[in-house]
Amino acid sequence: MPSVNNTHRIPTTDLDTPPRLLLGPGPSNAHPRVLRALSNRQVGHLDPAFLAIMGEVQELLRYAWQTDNPVTVPVSGTGSAAMEAAVANTVERGDSVVIGVNGYFGERLVDMATRYGAEVHRLDRAWGEAFSFDEISEAVERHKPRVLLLVHAETSTGARQPLEGVSELCREHDCLLLIDTVTSLGGVPLFLDEWGVDVAYSGTQKCLSCPPGLGPLTLGPRAVERLAARKTKVPNWYLDMSLVGQYWGKERTYHHTAPINMNYGLREALRLVAEEGLEARWERHARNARLLWDGLGEMGLACHVDEAIRLPSLTTIRVPDGVDAAAVSRELMARYNIEMAGGLGELKGKVWRVGLMGFNSREENVRLLLSALAEVL
Amino acid sequence: MPSVNNTHRIPTTDLDTPPRLLLGPGPSNAHPRVLRALSNRQVGHLDPAFLAIMGEVQELLRYAWQTDNPVTVPVSGTGSAAMEAAVANTVERGDSVVIGVNGYFGERLVDMATRYGAEVHRLDRAWGEAFSFDEISEAVERHKPRVLLLVHAETSTGARQPLEGVSELCREHDCLLLIDTVTSLGGVPLFLDEWGVDVAYSGTQKCLSCPPGLGPLTLGPRAVERLAARKTKVPNWYLDMSLVGQYWGKERTYHHTAPINMNYGLREALRLVAEEGLEARWERHARNARLLWDGLGEMGLACHVDEAIRLPSLTTIRVPDGVDAAAVSRELMARYNIEMAGGLGELKGKVWRVGLMGFNSREENVRLLLSALAEVL
Repeated sequence: MPSVNNTHRIPTTDLDTPPRLLLGPGPSNAHPRVLRALSNRQVGHLDPAFLAIMGEVQELLRYAWQTDNPVTVPVSGTGSAAMEAAVANTVERGDSVVIGVNGYFGERLVDMATRYGAEVHRLDRAWGEAFSFDEISEAVERHKPRVLLLVHAETSTGARQPLEGVSELCREHDCLLLIDTVTSLGGVPLFLDEWGVDVAYSGTQKCLSCPPGLGPLTLGPRAVERLAARKTKVPNWYLDMSLVGQYWGKERTYHHTAPINMNYGLREALRLVAEEGLEARWERHARNARLLWDGLGEMGLACHVDEAIRLPSLTTIRVPDGVDAAAVSRELMARYNIEMAGGLGELKGKVWRVGLMGFNSREENVRLLLSALAEVL
Repeated sequence: MPSVNNTHRIPTTDLDTPPRLLLGPGPSNAHPRVLRALSNRQVGHLDPAFLAIMGEVQELLRYAWQTDNPVTVPVSGTGSAAMEAAVANTVERGDSVVIGVNGYFGERLVDMATRYGAEVHRLDRAWGEAFSFDEISEAVERHKPRVLLLVHAETSTGARQPLEGVSELCREHDCLLLIDTVTSLGGVPLFLDEWGVDVAYSGTQKCLSCPPGLGPLTLGPRAVERLAARKTKVPNWYLDMSLVGQYWGKERTYHHTAPINMNYGLREALRLVAEEGLEARWERHARNARLLWDGLGEMGLACHVDEAIRLPSLTTIRVPDGVDAAAVSRELMARYNIEMAGGLGELKGKVWRVGLMGFNSREENVRLLLSALAEVL
């Protein structure tokens, strides 16, 4: 046997991280009860005790999303994995798809759908705007897509995409409606079944106040049919819902080892949603966002997104002329331990992104941020 | 706005799970220090404090694997995601590959490689055996593979695949050597660089004693070259190491939000490996396995795998004639809270699988298991 090389056996200290207030686009701070749940002792991934937990997580996800979809599961990866699962399971090589691109995550959907061989038709809009029904309708009429992909809550811009009438349009054209709810689930009204959404995905680290590491995904009956009728296997083993669904469904067939402790955390996060109730939770997010927007207005700062489609969970603030956006963020972190993010892509250097999500959507955080921002500016 | 449907707002109780001793093939019990680290307060995924943690995780993974590979990262999914990342990044449509199939995870590699369009050549052996150098050499000569995929530690059988001479063979044929180290990393001698391994992956929930949820992956220089020279994009966005590698590399470009708290846990698990030292850790695994094997022998129970290639981390025990394997496992759990798994595939009903991994590889666990098994049988 060779001798062991100790080059990479570096000295380390006990874990100690600064007490950040995470007011960027996510991760937001997990609820303390969620953090405690994470360290609960483990059981196996096929233990009856864990199967019961899985069932509870699924039920509470259905509540949070307002759906009866049997196939509602936390994908064993982050929100981006759930996004890819949504695409991989519904798109087949050569399929026409229409993707609304009005921010970073629309762009990412284009990248993913392209990798899965889709014939991608982009519907473009400036970052921070939303698509009108007529624009969507015209694109669907023209391109006859198999899937229409829209970002309900654009994490890069803070814009909400209205969905009135879209589901009827999709049904007329035998097209699935797939939406990104990463920054809306648990903070912004969502009625998947009422709205006729066929596929949705999310992350745990936004309005659910759980650390990142799981990606909720739900497939409605039309999406499940589409999956069953595929001509080819899903070209992604880990995210193949025809396999994953058997572990989370009645069969309980082993596919991969679920992230046990992360599921403990998500269960606790969803219990908090159920305890508070969706109506109260949405109202709290709206109220604290209003407080932030009013405070920003008083400071002479403008929001980038029109109020009619502005997400209460994520606000983009226009950086005033002559101000160094990155320097302000650095200062907020250095002096106040507050994380406030900058813009991505088209909005880089032009906006700051402030998240008031889940546990972090509290009046004291708004007051602190406004006061700290006034000091730094 | 529609009214909220409370059908799925089910009542739940505080999380409470039975005190299982996880002596199956994984997950094994996490070390208590790891469980505590999970619930540490969060920082953002681009926070300088987190970037420092990422660097430490990478260094300590290099130590555990005995490699200098710069591209050594925990994939943001379970070990199965790391397995798929290994395949997706090295295999291109039409590539000839040779896969050693002597257990469940070899079969899974075949499924994955097929989905990525490889021309798969199987090398088959009964479950529980290993391949001889001559068999491997003959297959490589005949099929001229671009990648040779072998399972170093077969979690379904407990067999270890010797690798002497294999790397030289691969280099002669411009073929990458990719190995599964899910059940060996942190418990069984591994010298990736000495052995000339180009790609390896693992899980966190076996000999590293961290909960499932991350999948360590390492790419050597020849694999990185292969990735850079691809004719097509990796057909998997989430696991594309040319993107993920930029977040974990010098660029720190955002790709997806890393599972912050799971990385806290993995860091602590790897610190425990570094504190104990690989030599002592491997010796401890060997010593406790020997104790188990001797005890089983005294009870008249036979191990399924030949001792020369038997993994100290995972033992398959032959189920005696006339004994109901599943009933024994159920009884061990009901009476003693001990999880001991059954066989998969070819070995279903024929063996039990006992893991003595990481924190769980302790003499008291061996004594308890032997005593409980004697009672139940």
